[in-house]
Amino acid sequence: MASVSRRSLLASGGVAALGLTVAGVRGATADGAQHDHGAHSHAHGGSGMAHGGGVNGPMFRGGQTVDHAANGFDPTEILRDFDWGRTTKLPGGRTLREWDVWASDHDVEVAPGVTFPAWTFNGRIPGPTLRCREGERLRINFRNGSHHPHTMHFHGIHPADMDGVAGQGAGIIEPGATTIYEFDAEPFGLHLYHCHVGPLAEHIARGMYGTFIIDPAGGRPDADELVMVQHGYNTTFDGEGNQLYAVNGIPFCYMNAPVQVRRGELVRIYLTNLLEYDPINSFHLHGNFFHYFPTGTSLQPLEYTDTVAQVQGQRGILEMRFPHTGQFMFHAHKTEFAELGWMGMFEVTG
Amino acid sequence: MASVSRRSLLASGGVAALGLTVAGVRGATADGAQHDHGAHSHAHGGSGMAHGGGVNGPMFRGGQTVDHAANGFDPTEILRDFDWGRTTKLPGGRTLREWDVWASDHDVEVAPGVTFPAWTFNGRIPGPTLRCREGERLRINFRNGSHHPHTMHFHGIHPADMDGVAGQGAGIIEPGATTIYEFDAEPFGLHLYHCHVGPLAEHIARGMYGTFIIDPAGGRPDADELVMVQHGYNTTFDGEGNQLYAVNGIPFCYMNAPVQVRRGELVRIYLTNLLEYDPINSFHLHGNFFHYFPTGTSLQPLEYTDTVAQVQGQRGILEMRFPHTGQFMFHAHKTEFAELGWMGMFEVTG
Amino acid sequence: MASVSRRSLLASGGVAALGLTVAGVRGATADGAQHDHGAHSHAHGGSGMAHGGGVNGPMFRGGQTVDHAANGFDPTEILRDFDWGRTTKLPGGRTLREWDVWASDHDVEVAPGVTFPAWTFNGRIPGPTLRCREGERLRINFRNGSHHPHTMHFHGIHPADMDGVAGQGAGIIEPGATTIYEFDAEPFGLHLYHCHVGPLAEHIARGMYGTFIIDPAGGRPDADELVMVQHGYNTTFDGEGNQLYAVNGIPFCYMNAPVQVRRGELVRIYLTNLLEYDPINSFHLHGNFFHYFPTGTSLQPLEYTDTVAQVQGQRGILEMRFPHTGQFMFHAHKTEFAELGWMGMFEVTG
Repeated sequence: MASVSRRSLLASGGVAALGLTVAGVRGATADGAQHDHGAHSHAHGGSGMAHGGGVNGPMFRGGQTVDHAANGFDPTEILRDFDWGRTTKLPGGRTLREWDVWASDHDVEVAPGVTFPAWTFNGRIPGPTLRCREGERLRINFRNGSHHPHTMHFHGIHPADMDGVAGQGAGIIEPGATTIYEFDAEPFGLHLYHCHVGPLAEHIARGMYGTFIIDPAGGRPDADELVMVQHGYNTTFDGEGNQLYAVNGIPFCYMNAPVQVRRGELVRIYLTNLLEYDPINSFHLHGNFFHYFPTGTSLQPLEYTDTVAQVQGQRGILEMRFPHTGQFMFHAHKTEFAELGWMGMFEVTG
Repeated sequence: MASVSRRSLLASGGVAALGLTVAGVRGATADGAQHDHGAHSHAHGGSGMAHGGGVNGPMFRGGQTVDHAANGFDPTEILRDFDWGRTTKLPGGRTLREWDVWASDHDVEVAPGVTFPAWTFNGRIPGPTLRCREGERLRINFRNGSHHPHTMHFHGIHPADMDGVAGQGAGIIEPGATTIYEFDAEPFGLHLYHCHVGPLAEHIARGMYGTFIIDPAGGRPDADELVMVQHGYNTTFDGEGNQLYAVNGIPFCYMNAPVQVRRGELVRIYLTNLLEYDPINSFHLHGNFFHYFPTGTSLQPLEYTDTVAQVQGQRGILEMRFPHTGQFMFHAHKTEFAELGWMGMFEVTG
Repeated sequence: MASVSRRSLLASGGVAALGLTVAGVRGATADGAQHDHGAHSHAHGGSGMAHGGGVNGPMFRGGQTVDHAANGFDPTEILRDFDWGRTTKLPGGRTLREWDVWASDHDVEVAPGVTFPAWTFNGRIPGPTLRCREGERLRINFRNGSHHPHTMHFHGIHPADMDGVAGQGAGIIEPGATTIYEFDAEPFGLHLYHCHVGPLAEHIARGMYGTFIIDPAGGRPDADELVMVQHGYNTTFDGEGNQLYAVNGIPFCYMNAPVQVRRGELVRIYLTNLLEYDPINSFHLHGNFFHYFPTGTSLQPLEYTDTVAQVQGQRGILEMRFPHTGQFMFHAHKTEFAELGWMGMFEVTG
């Protein structure tokens, strides 16, 4: 983890310049009475950092958020935006499912007033949630509209020449070029895709990842389904770590716009971790428990808990029902990540 | 991880001043013959650090330990100290279980001669092990006797206004104030509680956490039950990492006072990880294996192993029987943590 | 993690001197067209680092590799080299299985032109894969031919005096001395052994570890079996982290010499993590999935996935069949580790 370089930055005042200090507490009075002014002897950079309900600091204070329309995507819409592509029938009756995906360079306002020069799939972070059914034939028409070479590397079972890495099949796709990735949808589960061009850490950290869901043939029980991609932003481009953490593109986005769910209804979260630089990420839900299906490849849950860990590339399905109405936080149970953006809120209504 | 700042400190001689150098080997002769004097080319700070049986350096050498009586708690007592609170019957016959918990500022001798200005629940680190049975009604009468605002945030299922976070229910509890947390005991399993006031990392790292056990309705098989809370001390308050690691409050405590267990008897450990700053912690048992029940929410173990990992907030139950008498180490299988205090010894008698 | 010290080194040009810059892409043309020259604003040290198919930089470019014969071991041979020792019958008919293991100081060429002063078991990194069957009596005749004190500490069930730690049984074995470790083979599963002398981090990081397999009484299904030990090299000896990452001794070795497997055949990988300094390691397989048996102590897999995580001391068995011929990468899904050597290739033939 590269906390030192970030914190050196904090100590040097660089953060104030970037507007990245995060302080205050959601619901706090204007004077910030709800966080701890009395603390002595704590010397960590940005001593105004607070956790415990949201963010009310210079960056996001007063309910400020980013311009989702200008960004071209809205985290609240990403939550339930499943891209099923378009289908045709192959000879013999099998379904061919097809998507158009393009890479592009795209400035994203990742915090109020902070612009990040992202590389994206379909102009958003994370890229589109590609969803299909087990056994279908899949075709992704990929066009590289970025100024940098890219690929799409899918997690899943496929031939070597469809792997989206250098030296295999079409290999690296140069700016302006196109390719077609085509393979069978297997195995059912929760997968992901990302660019696989070197320097790989940067190509991922710039925003080039997305969720890839293969539904089991018989489907899953009806539920209110949500997608959450854990990731970060290395806004200093030092390759040492992240200055902002998020799910679905914008730090703290679900503190300002809580995720709306209903009491008693089955909620299913497709959770992936694409966080670059840090060794591990985690997800903690307040006031409730969930069943966890690692990689989504079994219809039986492996664990019943409120906290799970994922290294980069790991993913799993969470299923829960909220017995109580009200607001319940969710965040990384790595305090640092939570305080730098990886926290949100469920709002449960009756 | 903040190894750099710590090691910069080590390099600068700061550790000698703090008395934190850890060297030597339990059972070693006075000249330290059992550790490696011949090593060349290893440049890590504190080159006298040793692992492999205990600690015999400046801090703990010669069997020195801290003044448990002055601290007000003893790790050996914490092992088997389950706080069942007091019960009354509610109309209809249901059990109401009730505890009094208070926060306070409390200097703790965390190593011989090293005083840490802790924030504690009930004057100890970790806080009391609150234990109850599935389905009971629970009530925690919380009084904040600290000079800092605090809360109790429980992992488990409960209403939003009982979540112990800012902006929900009573929100943050100011110094001198009180509140009541009340909710049903669900689900059965191994949980935890901690303060949830910002800056959260410091409020946790100061010592504000404890174990929360909900027994299944039918109980678990009879066993010699132990509680172990993994945590650390950021004695420099730099917010970068820990200078000491421990289970149950005092580094190396079970090297000097091995955990007494009996051959053939079922031993059950309630293991939680509250370690702040570091991304992950682990537990390794020497010479034996255990069944692991993550989060304790199933009566069937998930794994049979000798090494498990936990991110902050994760926890699990370990069940084992020792087939052999003698002394068996247990420690983090992260060498750094072990060498800085996170190691102990079981003493198995016939 | 100690990325800062390494990267400080990178920034200062130390890497060029050591020949450790890793750049280029397997199969790339000489001008490196397949990696991203157009990247702007990425400031991480060694900006020529590339991932996505192999390594073609100063250290390994043009198919260069190390002198396996001079090293005395070859990673390709280590893959399938199971050391069953020699057996005799004990009174009553039980099998006694016996090995001779020696420690020695041994210079290893860990990258072309880079010599690492290793401490080894039987002159190789990792040490020999000791393999036996559940219930046998095991005897390891250990001779310390190194200039440093060492032990063999086994993961598994055994008496305290056979634990290979200071103060228990024979304790630490001084240079020139010998000892015998003897215990029953239990439980069946995938285990490991390592030196347990302080400073422990260095004794492990120097190369003193190996795989220890106890087969279940009824065996496992026939398969093409492979051993992979994840580890690293702290070539600066700063005790802060690793400059090179590998499986089975040599960074990138299976990029130059892909692991040969056959389509449709059951492949079983015994995967362990002995990486020192870093908090966690991971294994990702391209284009395929595997069943995962953590610690190998159950005959039923726990998960079906393409990415698993292991902290130091954790291990597990992977079982897979490749449905497609061709080349498929495998690597840590921690980009940094992959770019510094922890990547390889399967070559699947029909």
